[in-house]
Amino acid sequence: MSGRCVPPMPQAIWVDPGHDAAYPVYVGAGLDIPTLLRGHVEGRQVLLVSDEQVSGLYLDSTAAALATCGVAGLGCAAVPVGEGSKSLQQAGLLWDLMAKRRFPRDGVVLALGGGVVGDLAGFVAGVYHRGVQWIQMPTTLLAQVDAAVGGKTAVNHPMGKNLLGVFHQPSCVLSDVRFLSSLPMRDLRAGLAEVVKHALLEGEDFFSWLEQAAPALLARDEVALEEAVRRCVHLKAAVVAADEKEAGQRALLNLGHTFGHALEVLGDYTVLLHGEAVAVGLAVACRVAVALGLMERAPQERLESLLARLELRPALPEGITAAAWRAAMSGDKKVRRGELPLVLPRGIGDVVLCTAYDAAWLETVLKDFLREYAIL
Amino acid sequence: MSGRCVPPMPQAIWVDPGHDAAYPVYVGAGLDIPTLLRGHVEGRQVLLVSDEQVSGLYLDSTAAALATCGVAGLGCAAVPVGEGSKSLQQAGLLWDLMAKRRFPRDGVVLALGGGVVGDLAGFVAGVYHRGVQWIQMPTTLLAQVDAAVGGKTAVNHPMGKNLLGVFHQPSCVLSDVRFLSSLPMRDLRAGLAEVVKHALLEGEDFFSWLEQAAPALLARDEVALEEAVRRCVHLKAAVVAADEKEAGQRALLNLGHTFGHALEVLGDYTVLLHGEAVAVGLAVACRVAVALGLMERAPQERLESLLARLELRPALPEGITAAAWRAAMSGDKKVRRGELPLVLPRGIGDVVLCTAYDAAWLETVLKDFLREYAIL
Repeated sequence: MSGRCVPPMPQAIWVDPGHDAAYPVYVGAGLDIPTLLRGHVEGRQVLLVSDEQVSGLYLDSTAAALATCGVAGLGCAAVPVGEGSKSLQQAGLLWDLMAKRRFPRDGVVLALGGGVVGDLAGFVAGVYHRGVQWIQMPTTLLAQVDAAVGGKTAVNHPMGKNLLGVFHQPSCVLSDVRFLSSLPMRDLRAGLAEVVKHALLEGEDFFSWLEQAAPALLARDEVALEEAVRRCVHLKAAVVAADEKEAGQRALLNLGHTFGHALEVLGDYTVLLHGEAVAVGLAVACRVAVALGLMERAPQERLESLLARLELRPALPEGITAAAWRAAMSGDKKVRRGELPLVLPRGIGDVVLCTAYDAAWLETVLKDFLREYAIL
Repeated sequence: MSGRCVPPMPQAIWVDPGHDAAYPVYVGAGLDIPTLLRGHVEGRQVLLVSDEQVSGLYLDSTAAALATCGVAGLGCAAVPVGEGSKSLQQAGLLWDLMAKRRFPRDGVVLALGGGVVGDLAGFVAGVYHRGVQWIQMPTTLLAQVDAAVGGKTAVNHPMGKNLLGVFHQPSCVLSDVRFLSSLPMRDLRAGLAEVVKHALLEGEDFFSWLEQAAPALLARDEVALEEAVRRCVHLKAAVVAADEKEAGQRALLNLGHTFGHALEVLGDYTVLLHGEAVAVGLAVACRVAVALGLMERAPQERLESLLARLELRPALPEGITAAAWRAAMSGDKKVRRGELPLVLPRGIGDVVLCTAYDAAWLETVLKDFLREYAIL
């Protein structure tokens, strides 16, 4: 026994998609890496995948912490910053590196970074030797509240975002909100858009908490951030446990995403951050729901007001039209037999899948939305 | 109702690895594709993947049969013949093709060919949109008795065979032994090596059946071939059901493979066919088992005699030494923490995993084997 003072283990949120793949998600401020990761990495080869920005900030401290865990070997790879690294080519480079070093079947890939790093490293781990273990240490709010939980991994193809990927659950997730201190403000706000989505899915308790916590979150209050991440992870864990591969319930997590994703495409992925697009998507989903008579105006107004308080009213791609928006939606990969199901809210904490709408009618709603968005 | 005379549905062998992935394997001579596949492909886009040789023989008839199944669209891709097509580059070309044609999530990939086509097409299907459905129509004996059942898919990497892959179960397998009429004799024999392996794993009933059926199998008797395939699929289905991802029992299917795989590597994959290498591997595994005192001489002699009757005594890579053989084995991906577990028989129908052996001692057994093999 060493005399080291061991901090208490934070309570884990367990994600259990079945098939012996249950794993803990630790959420906290200043998580103790050796305590939490030793059991996962001791005696094993570890490949730490990061990007060139995150590695400059957190690689040394993370590697030093891993060095105390009795790993058999530690390799590091830092990919270029940005969505461009989520490519088959970049995955190929990492596989080359692993193969050259004879990275073994019982090795562990550790993803230290945002959604790009997590999606890429998870895909790389999921395919190498038909799947080696991996651990997520998400460093952005977006990744902590969404991408790091659920085992969806992917790279992009020139013809489609996340077109190539696998479901591969991590063996552990460490979400340390202290990483968020270095996050640019715009990325923090984009992450909050996913928190809004989760609150809208979850219900009144989460939503009203978020309304009052908005200023603290924007001020990066650690207690508020930890609470937000924890609530989102709880919700996502429940959904993933019920439906790992998005056969049903998990599709509801796409609330706001079909509208938002089309905006990302129209902006060539350079105008809007993913979270910003989701924020607009949530606003539109509520408009459509109200127009369809699915939802009252009051919750829609609460949502728009919350987005405004979080400063989530991003500039849209220049020259965007309702027709182009709707056309971009029809390229969505969720289209089945020509129909695109929309996730729409009936109220706070009550969303449904809807295919019973007319495409031309939808375009007029988008048109009204765009007109009003331009004025406000 | 049409007046068409519908042949009876052959009895399916069901493979059930859990997680709602159960699928039927149909084994027969002259299987009726429309009857068996309609339910899987009706109203869907189908991409038929084959190689340039198989497509010349069977593409037209298969496409014609699919055309009567009400598919929404049919695309065909024929990759170059041979192991070289099991590459990430070839997978990338198929993904490009699928993306360009906007191949949808509910599309179906149909693999028509041997192990290379099946492994490649299954991998491509397993990663596209995080997994679309796929169907196997194996056209070689090796693929029918082994590769087509169990959901292992992969491509090779310059540094390792099958290094990149996923577990992705097909939704249906059609093993028609009539395809085997066009198989070169050498490939037929190589496939029979895997049948021998299955018989050695299964027990006396299968093994003694195989001893008497050997001449009929070499003469491509359809009844005998169907029986051989059926027995192998039954065995493999049971193993996969118990252990989809090779955490335990499934590893026993590697009987003969660790020794054999090293021979393939030493011959740069050009000297020995996979099945030929497995045949030698089975013979060596028995020698090692006898030398360790695990097994009597009698079953070992029965195995060698059976291999001789099946003409499975291939020429080994030139200049091979016991030291090189053992060294190549230590590069096996099943090495964990420096130890390489060997699958060894204790008798017919009784195999065990063994790590309790000395590496130098193993080399002397290999040396004796090589000396005797050269003389016989």
